[in-house]
Amino acid sequence: MDLLIRNGMLVTTSETFVADIGVEKGKIVSITREINDQKAEMEIDATGKYVLPGALDVHTHLQMPFGGTISSDGYFSGTRAALCGGTTTVFDFILQNFDEPMLDAFKRRNALCEPEAACDYAFHIAVKDIHGSLLDTMEDAVKAGIPTFKVFMVYDFGVTDGTFYQVLKKAQDIGARISVHAENNDMVNFLVKKYLSEGKTSAYDHYLSRPEFVEAEADHRAIQWAKSLNAPLYIVHLACKEGVEEVTKARAEGYEIYAETCPQYLAFTNEVYKGPNGRAFVCSPPIKGKESQEALWDAIRRGTIDTIATDHCPFNSFEKDWGKDDFSKIPNGCAGIENMYPYMLNAANVGKISFNKAVELCASNPAKLFGCKQKGSLAVGKDADIVLYDPKKAVTITNEEMHSDCDHTIWEGIPLTGYPVATYLRGQLVYQDGKFLGKKGMGHFISRSLQ
Amino acid sequence: MDLLIRNGMLVTTSETFVADIGVEKGKIVSITREINDQKAEMEIDATGKYVLPGALDVHTHLQMPFGGTISSDGYFSGTRAALCGGTTTVFDFILQNFDEPMLDAFKRRNALCEPEAACDYAFHIAVKDIHGSLLDTMEDAVKAGIPTFKVFMVYDFGVTDGTFYQVLKKAQDIGARISVHAENNDMVNFLVKKYLSEGKTSAYDHYLSRPEFVEAEADHRAIQWAKSLNAPLYIVHLACKEGVEEVTKARAEGYEIYAETCPQYLAFTNEVYKGPNGRAFVCSPPIKGKESQEALWDAIRRGTIDTIATDHCPFNSFEKDWGKDDFSKIPNGCAGIENMYPYMLNAANVGKISFNKAVELCASNPAKLFGCKQKGSLAVGKDADIVLYDPKKAVTITNEEMHSDCDHTIWEGIPLTGYPVATYLRGQLVYQDGKFLGKKGMGHFISRSLQ
Amino acid sequence: MDLLIRNGMLVTTSETFVADIGVEKGKIVSITREINDQKAEMEIDATGKYVLPGALDVHTHLQMPFGGTISSDGYFSGTRAALCGGTTTVFDFILQNFDEPMLDAFKRRNALCEPEAACDYAFHIAVKDIHGSLLDTMEDAVKAGIPTFKVFMVYDFGVTDGTFYQVLKKAQDIGARISVHAENNDMVNFLVKKYLSEGKTSAYDHYLSRPEFVEAEADHRAIQWAKSLNAPLYIVHLACKEGVEEVTKARAEGYEIYAETCPQYLAFTNEVYKGPNGRAFVCSPPIKGKESQEALWDAIRRGTIDTIATDHCPFNSFEKDWGKDDFSKIPNGCAGIENMYPYMLNAANVGKISFNKAVELCASNPAKLFGCKQKGSLAVGKDADIVLYDPKKAVTITNEEMHSDCDHTIWEGIPLTGYPVATYLRGQLVYQDGKFLGKKGMGHFISRSLQ
Amino acid sequence: MDLLIRNGMLVTTSETFVADIGVEKGKIVSITREINDQKAEMEIDATGKYVLPGALDVHTHLQMPFGGTISSDGYFSGTRAALCGGTTTVFDFILQNFDEPMLDAFKRRNALCEPEAACDYAFHIAVKDIHGSLLDTMEDAVKAGIPTFKVFMVYDFGVTDGTFYQVLKKAQDIGARISVHAENNDMVNFLVKKYLSEGKTSAYDHYLSRPEFVEAEADHRAIQWAKSLNAPLYIVHLACKEGVEEVTKARAEGYEIYAETCPQYLAFTNEVYKGPNGRAFVCSPPIKGKESQEALWDAIRRGTIDTIATDHCPFNSFEKDWGKDDFSKIPNGCAGIENMYPYMLNAANVGKISFNKAVELCASNPAKLFGCKQKGSLAVGKDADIVLYDPKKAVTITNEEMHSDCDHTIWEGIPLTGYPVATYLRGQLVYQDGKFLGKKGMGHFISRSLQ
Repeated sequence: MDLLIRNGMLVTTSETFVADIGVEKGKIVSITREINDQKAEMEIDATGKYVLPGALDVHTHLQMPFGGTISSDGYFSGTRAALCGGTTTVFDFILQNFDEPMLDAFKRRNALCEPEAACDYAFHIAVKDIHGSLLDTMEDAVKAGIPTFKVFMVYDFGVTDGTFYQVLKKAQDIGARISVHAENNDMVNFLVKKYLSEGKTSAYDHYLSRPEFVEAEADHRAIQWAKSLNAPLYIVHLACKEGVEEVTKARAEGYEIYAETCPQYLAFTNEVYKGPNGRAFVCSPPIKGKESQEALWDAIRRGTIDTIATDHCPFNSFEKDWGKDDFSKIPNGCAGIENMYPYMLNAANVGKISFNKAVELCASNPAKLFGCKQKGSLAVGKDADIVLYDPKKAVTITNEEMHSDCDHTIWEGIPLTGYPVATYLRGQLVYQDGKFLGKKGMGHFISRSLQ
Repeated sequence: MDLLIRNGMLVTTSETFVADIGVEKGKIVSITREINDQKAEMEIDATGKYVLPGALDVHTHLQMPFGGTISSDGYFSGTRAALCGGTTTVFDFILQNFDEPMLDAFKRRNALCEPEAACDYAFHIAVKDIHGSLLDTMEDAVKAGIPTFKVFMVYDFGVTDGTFYQVLKKAQDIGARISVHAENNDMVNFLVKKYLSEGKTSAYDHYLSRPEFVEAEADHRAIQWAKSLNAPLYIVHLACKEGVEEVTKARAEGYEIYAETCPQYLAFTNEVYKGPNGRAFVCSPPIKGKESQEALWDAIRRGTIDTIATDHCPFNSFEKDWGKDDFSKIPNGCAGIENMYPYMLNAANVGKISFNKAVELCASNPAKLFGCKQKGSLAVGKDADIVLYDPKKAVTITNEEMHSDCDHTIWEGIPLTGYPVATYLRGQLVYQDGKFLGKKGMGHFISRSLQ
Repeated sequence: MDLLIRNGMLVTTSETFVADIGVEKGKIVSITREINDQKAEMEIDATGKYVLPGALDVHTHLQMPFGGTISSDGYFSGTRAALCGGTTTVFDFILQNFDEPMLDAFKRRNALCEPEAACDYAFHIAVKDIHGSLLDTMEDAVKAGIPTFKVFMVYDFGVTDGTFYQVLKKAQDIGARISVHAENNDMVNFLVKKYLSEGKTSAYDHYLSRPEFVEAEADHRAIQWAKSLNAPLYIVHLACKEGVEEVTKARAEGYEIYAETCPQYLAFTNEVYKGPNGRAFVCSPPIKGKESQEALWDAIRRGTIDTIATDHCPFNSFEKDWGKDDFSKIPNGCAGIENMYPYMLNAANVGKISFNKAVELCASNPAKLFGCKQKGSLAVGKDADIVLYDPKKAVTITNEEMHSDCDHTIWEGIPLTGYPVATYLRGQLVYQDGKFLGKKGMGHFISRSLQ
Repeated sequence: MDLLIRNGMLVTTSETFVADIGVEKGKIVSITREINDQKAEMEIDATGKYVLPGALDVHTHLQMPFGGTISSDGYFSGTRAALCGGTTTVFDFILQNFDEPMLDAFKRRNALCEPEAACDYAFHIAVKDIHGSLLDTMEDAVKAGIPTFKVFMVYDFGVTDGTFYQVLKKAQDIGARISVHAENNDMVNFLVKKYLSEGKTSAYDHYLSRPEFVEAEADHRAIQWAKSLNAPLYIVHLACKEGVEEVTKARAEGYEIYAETCPQYLAFTNEVYKGPNGRAFVCSPPIKGKESQEALWDAIRRGTIDTIATDHCPFNSFEKDWGKDDFSKIPNGCAGIENMYPYMLNAANVGKISFNKAVELCASNPAKLFGCKQKGSLAVGKDADIVLYDPKKAVTITNEEMHSDCDHTIWEGIPLTGYPVATYLRGQLVYQDGKFLGKKGMGHFISRSLQ
């Protein structure tokens, strides 16, 4: 046996129990208790620690050209930060270029990612252009292990309703699933113009330009199209109360609608936009009011929210400052890739949710929903992506201690009770006590299938 | 006294009672019972007849350029037909031209209408263009007695969400109210293209290209904008079950949302599109399935539908035939201006609704919702727009007997129990026993205010 | 003509207009405008006044044995007070005795009422006992003009669910309609015992012993039985938000559920029970919290509440004081018979609702729902029950000025803008400017039919 | 190691994977894969078999005096049958006697059960009497490892609403949870009397005497009380669509409401009562119509139903025949203890639900909801209650092959694809290939805690 972690408190989506966990050739090969004759190359005593599956962050934007620049974390620094926060697999978004077949898009980005990735990774493809036979190339991506696509309802590369419908239909035909960024594009454009023309240019005006109802409308519309086809749909970064209600209603009617939210929508409210560093928090959809924050926590507890992911997409301060006098010039996005699992486990540790729920949201459900069969759970046969979590270690987040290539973080100063103290990727120790121990390029591309 | 109609069964929205009704100078001056010494120039015995307020048809498209031609009823023939069906006031839609101030639009169309109109008339203005100061010219129209506007969410002259929002806001500020034709434009365009490209070109494919969910989505979206502003909104020709549910829900939340439906959605289902004369029934939104038909009747009984109007917009057969091999070339619209009141009164006569309800839907509510204070009710002081209805007169509708300038009608062959036998416009007999007795140009423009 | 009231502002459920109204032999015979040659024995100038139909109070308990005493208003003083508040017809509840056929119950109480009643009156019978053939005697009451019955779900004379069901079914078979006092009897009994045993004995503890959920549960249960039979049901004195939601839901499903509330639930909240005269406000169901108060007003505006009635059942202070140390000994009930119409018209006068709505709630709907065909509306042929209302007369309610036989009123000190200045019962002036001008026994029993 | 089951397909609530599972001293001590040097006293090759946690049947009535007799399965035969169907723990209901402290009730029944039980067992106490200090004795039961109680809303020993409320409150205070049998007692009694008096005496009339609305009403009422206290509540044998809706609604509002249904409600509809052996199916609540059956399956898939249990309570044919001419004389209840897990696993095997879901419903959720910490899951440290399931073994159920002491079964003739081929109770083989291998008295009492 290569590795044996003894006496930790293992957590699955339904159980929490003390056991020893053994690893060989990168796989979990044993979960045992009171079997004393086991031996391993490396033995760890995890007494008093939680032993958890590595998290999957199914929503990241690494090295992404956006807003006139490129998101500050490259494939190396981003995946390094992931590992240091207990996330062992990231799903990055490939933005298809116009006229580009899906497989070409994959190759283009994989060429950048493969040599850099420190953790395992998968891709979703964000569909922009389906003209001619491009729509059919989705099937090539599915065959290449990328059965998940995304459409944006906003931004200049967002899709029309008709395109959205076609993508949903095609996905249904070829065993793929669609994610959607739901905000109403025309209304956003109008409100941005309106507020700027009225001299309202602050970070809070960014929020006002895409308030609750702008997101809620798009949530409803997206669900309407999915319902009309009886096709599954996954809503990324759900951030408003009315959206939660739409998802709840559609599910009660029997439709297969999934929802993700992000730590920033759970930890903060739109009040942050009024503060001096409001620009740092600018992302889309923006963080909403207290009512929405509470509705999201309720939805988590009730099971209406299936997954937590980060939408990690940081930009440096000088870039955020481009929008000092015009919020529309602020590159949208915040860091989070290293903070998700610690934040959600902290929520468990202080009793807001159970540890089982945290594991379900951050590891098990993402793995299952996105066809990542070898990940997401402490079960024999799975990849030995394992996190040791010390529930007593108190940490106050500082950007200095984080492993992103960004000069600030919205999580600065947030105190956490409990923190990951070690991360294993396929059995290899890649993070310990604040230090990254992995290396560039050790991450594998994860080929997936929803069948 | 100029006119005294004795012994009829008067119907208001809440009462039904035998009385004599007296008219002087075009106004109702008395409603009496057992006052035997009254005298009038003209005395009518209405024993056994219902005496009803003239209907208001708040949704007509006369002489309207559309689909490459002009709707077949001009201002004269359309208003003639209206009177012969017991409708004494029509609200025609003025389509604003691009770059045209609202008042200019009014003048342009009123110049056409004024010399022709046989019944009283009002206008709504359908807003297409609000750039520059055009939005502000809405207030000029309000001052000129046109406080009601419409936006289309479909067609090439439909508005974007941002424009819709601005029009709603402006209306709220100036005491106007917005009506909306709710269908999803992009989805319609996509589906039309899709079906045609698959060789699906029939009238039924017209229905398939704008099915229930395409309307329902737009109903929801329109309501969402109205809710975000807490602005009133009137949905024209509501035709689907899910739309009824959206209206019900918004009202239960306290929002001021109104809904209209049309006789064609109550009398027919999408089965008509499968018949040999399916093209005749092509209108938008198309007639939906049985579930929607039933939901509309329920909504009427529960008060969720406020008004009935016709969306009268007939085209001749040769024009309908343009779409023989391509449903998208069929001019959209059907006749109905002469059939609405007879159809709804028939529903009352056979017990589907009460006569009070028919009067509420076709006369009282339209008058109230659209600020037509002198119309819509048999009350002293109101215009003497009066219909005598013989509940025993059986009529089978034939186009030959109708008074439109169209060579066919979707109502052909429909049997009715009970029929209007006389119409008075401001006290003047303009229709009797199948014959039009009015004349071109006798209709007045009705200046309105919602205050 | 006996009476001609000129130039008043007439109010119907849908119109408000200046007209002259003529009366002969107790009936309204004319509503006219600008007919100048009319003459009458008595002519009144009502310029600047509203002319309204007399109200119907469909929920009173006059001279009722209850709580060890008799409600303080007898049939004379109660009906006198009614007239002085613009109410021209009262519906009193007859409590059937055990073993008593319905018709006997009617005769027993009518013998008391007939010589005393100053205004017109009708009866509902509260059913307590249906054993043997008693259930069938309901039909005798229907034939005698009493087609409306009530069941109590509380009190020692309340009915079981099985009995309630049978009464509903019987009513359905014989063309009658059932009203229900909905509170959960067993829960009330338990909570009363509980609070008293804990030394909680105040008027506020009365509220706590029958809080929102105790009423809401019974509302739901009553509706459930009505739905199971598809039988109509009328809920008296609806007083809680959740009950409003139950009614809304049942109607949306197509069931014929009606709801009444009372002025005390609209004007006050449970805060009154904390005041020094809390006992005066003790009634059942008790007045609920602010949320319920607001929900009731919303329900009125949306049409979910059909009628306003008073549940008039006052007791003198010495009787209320029996419960000084034990709220369960307070006779339940408050005065209101003289205050309903002034209070609701005041709401109209200050813009909370329209005058049309006030007339609908207090006159037209009660008359229609309870088969009182000659009442409830200013229409020719109806009884000339007419109220003149001066919208400018400011009145602050004092018990001294009221016409009940009770030594206090919960309405003491309430300021109203506008007040009734004259009441006519079938054309006779019975109240003017604060003075009762009618006489004992002039009220007629109103025989009714729901067909 | 005592036992090693190799190469089976292990199923947890979230994973399905091939592994070896090792047992020592009655506990699961290892779950491993590709560790080839393990040895055990007993080694089993489970290739091609599913390896599942033993089921927990949280709703049985063994040896229960009811309907004038005693349910036909005693503690031995009932638990024997359980083991032969893959159920390794049963929760039997103790009916408190009047005047009996809770602990006495436990001792009384445990004395009967302990020497007989072949599988592990726990108890719920059905509370009938709380007068004096009896309510407080619930805490003694909690301390003795019985933290779960039940109230019946029907039967002569059912509780009043006030008692129900007190029991809920007490449970909340002492860390216990309440289950409820929800039907409306008074309505049942009334309808039974009514149908019998009309000569309607068949098994189908039993259904008619407690139709959907009778259960739905009680579901709502029970939830209302739980909501008023914000107390958790578990509804046993939910059997109707409207009940599912009530649970869904309450949860969406954030309340902790749980629901159980039984295989008989999933497999059959009320049509069975029309058949020649309708009496065999008589249970309460009765099996409802097709709409309810479908709603229950939907609720399972959506997670609204938390658990499956049997309500096992069979009676012999001669006892069922007591109701030949009077359905009210039929002892209520059916067999199921041996059929639950096979039926639900069959549903998984044919694709109606997943195997994970079957395990969640029948093992994991029951264990968690009822504080049975050492059961319900294949995790190291848990009791080695293990079932081997052969997905290819086709079985048609016959009473002859079953292990109950009853002369018939409602499951007769039902074909299943897949069947349990071995059951281990704490590591001991107690059932194999149709044969019971355990023995009387080997079952342990399971002391539980909800903390």
